[in-house]
Amino acid sequence: MTSEFEIIEHYFKKKMKHTALGVGDDAAIINIQKNHQLVISSDMLIENIHFLKNTNPFHLGWKSLAVNLSDIAAMGGKPKWTTLSISLPKISHLWLRKFSGGFFKCANQFGIDLIGGDTSRGPLSISVTIMGEIKNNHTLLRSNAKINDDIWITGQLGLASMGLASLQRKLKLPPLLKTKCINTLEVPTPRVSLGSHLSRYTNSCIDISDGLIQDLNHILKASKVGAVLMLNDIPCEKFIHTSKQYQFVLNGGDDYELLFTAPKKNRSYIKKIAKKTNTAANIIGIITHKKDFKILNTQGKSVPFNIMGFDHFA
Amino acid sequence: MTSEFEIIEHYFKKKMKHTALGVGDDAAIINIQKNHQLVISSDMLIENIHFLKNTNPFHLGWKSLAVNLSDIAAMGGKPKWTTLSISLPKISHLWLRKFSGGFFKCANQFGIDLIGGDTSRGPLSISVTIMGEIKNNHTLLRSNAKINDDIWITGQLGLASMGLASLQRKLKLPPLLKTKCINTLEVPTPRVSLGSHLSRYTNSCIDISDGLIQDLNHILKASKVGAVLMLNDIPCEKFIHTSKQYQFVLNGGDDYELLFTAPKKNRSYIKKIAKKTNTAANIIGIITHKKDFKILNTQGKSVPFNIMGFDHFA
Repeated sequence: MTSEFEIIEHYFKKKMKHTALGVGDDAAIINIQKNHQLVISSDMLIENIHFLKNTNPFHLGWKSLAVNLSDIAAMGGKPKWTTLSISLPKISHLWLRKFSGGFFKCANQFGIDLIGGDTSRGPLSISVTIMGEIKNNHTLLRSNAKINDDIWITGQLGLASMGLASLQRKLKLPPLLKTKCINTLEVPTPRVSLGSHLSRYTNSCIDISDGLIQDLNHILKASKVGAVLMLNDIPCEKFIHTSKQYQFVLNGGDDYELLFTAPKKNRSYIKKIAKKTNTAANIIGIITHKKDFKILNTQGKSVPFNIMGFDHFA
Repeated sequence: MTSEFEIIEHYFKKKMKHTALGVGDDAAIINIQKNHQLVISSDMLIENIHFLKNTNPFHLGWKSLAVNLSDIAAMGGKPKWTTLSISLPKISHLWLRKFSGGFFKCANQFGIDLIGGDTSRGPLSISVTIMGEIKNNHTLLRSNAKINDDIWITGQLGLASMGLASLQRKLKLPPLLKTKCINTLEVPTPRVSLGSHLSRYTNSCIDISDGLIQDLNHILKASKVGAVLMLNDIPCEKFIHTSKQYQFVLNGGDDYELLFTAPKKNRSYIKKIAKKTNTAANIIGIITHKKDFKILNTQGKSVPFNIMGFDHFA
């Protein structure tokens, strides 16, 4: 088994749940529900840029789909279909079995059909396009945050970037925390269930892929508003207390938590949805008037920070 | 201008024609017309695998979209939206200007919106997902060829692979033909207009990306039928006369012509559509009963051939 057709047939052709025509023709065919729009996003993972050489291929398979699901969650959509294009330096059946195992574990958990893609020899890279449905006019945009909105965040921040720093031997972590951080880096949980329930109660949303400050700044710029964050309200590990360590929380990438803003009156609804979808969600600040972005410590003093984050060309 | 956001903003954000929300949020949003399905395909182009180092970036931009349009054409669909994920070893503004110029020249000619994607540092590779619309139940499948169908082909075959062999100094061509072949290799014309008009009159369709024999064989296997081709009816350059040269016609990849099968009674309709869409289309053979695939020369003798074509892992 060495041709691309055999690889696709053996590793990447699975039963479809909601697809009219899947892998095997020139293209796939899907039906969109009445009164729904299609929501689409693409992400690429490249060896030595987005993941370290020798990353567990099962985890890589999971992550390459999960980071895309996170984008659809951040729009308030329900992800349903994906394409996968993958280039490999050589055919390793062990690698393909693990990679496809991780990819389909994620696909099955979130109800996603793999409907097409491409395989080729080449430097290891994975390109995924994800498609989902959203009810007409229920989209969660970056551009709709309102003054006095609460700023919410799911989960904890900084874990993935601490995991990466630990793998790169730039940060020493206690063993249990190290495992947790690397797991968050390699097997992130996309907040799909919460995301698809948020749109009635929230004004804006983004997923944290490039760091809290940079991603919140996307909302502020698009919505033409400002923000005040309370440093001590940002959920993170107790391990973190120096300002250097706080860089992981403020600027660390790859967390794939949702950052959203919502009117104060919706707090109890949001807490209910978070509980129902088994997702931690906390208020970390407030949307303010234009061009004013502050982070305050417990003494109410402004903490200095740069609006920067992860740039793949930096 | 060096960040991925600036690159996207400057080179890849253009006015949309039929897109509810384009580049700039976590995902794009599109509306599908009533009684239409969405047709989706993904293709990847990798340096030194799918194109030679130092390929003209303008041509590469064109081709990376064109090969995807060809897949939608082969389904009978009308392509409308695309995502583009691109990894580059370093930022070269000259390269980006030319590449995006070629990409959007193709996009504008065929009415395609670029709605999202990803950019990153990495080995040069381009991953495109194309989306189009098709009327419910108007899809042209590989699996529907019928016994006694005419086998049609658009354009000429073998040009692209001769162009590649010429660039690799494996084939010496007369100067004018060399230019024509390299142009077909680097700037292929996807048969979008013809493809979107075919579905009422044809039974099956595929685009020739891996070679005539291999791609026709996909139709034969999927439709559980056989075929007889007349070697001398296959449109190709007069230059070709040895059996070694005929390999370019029979097994050469990258032609992106359409191969389709249709009942004899529809010949005049198909000729009309071909004329209207300014596309050369010729009958090269007939669909026969199961597991019988022959190519006959002018003496009616069977020409020996292998069912093989281009394999990206070979």
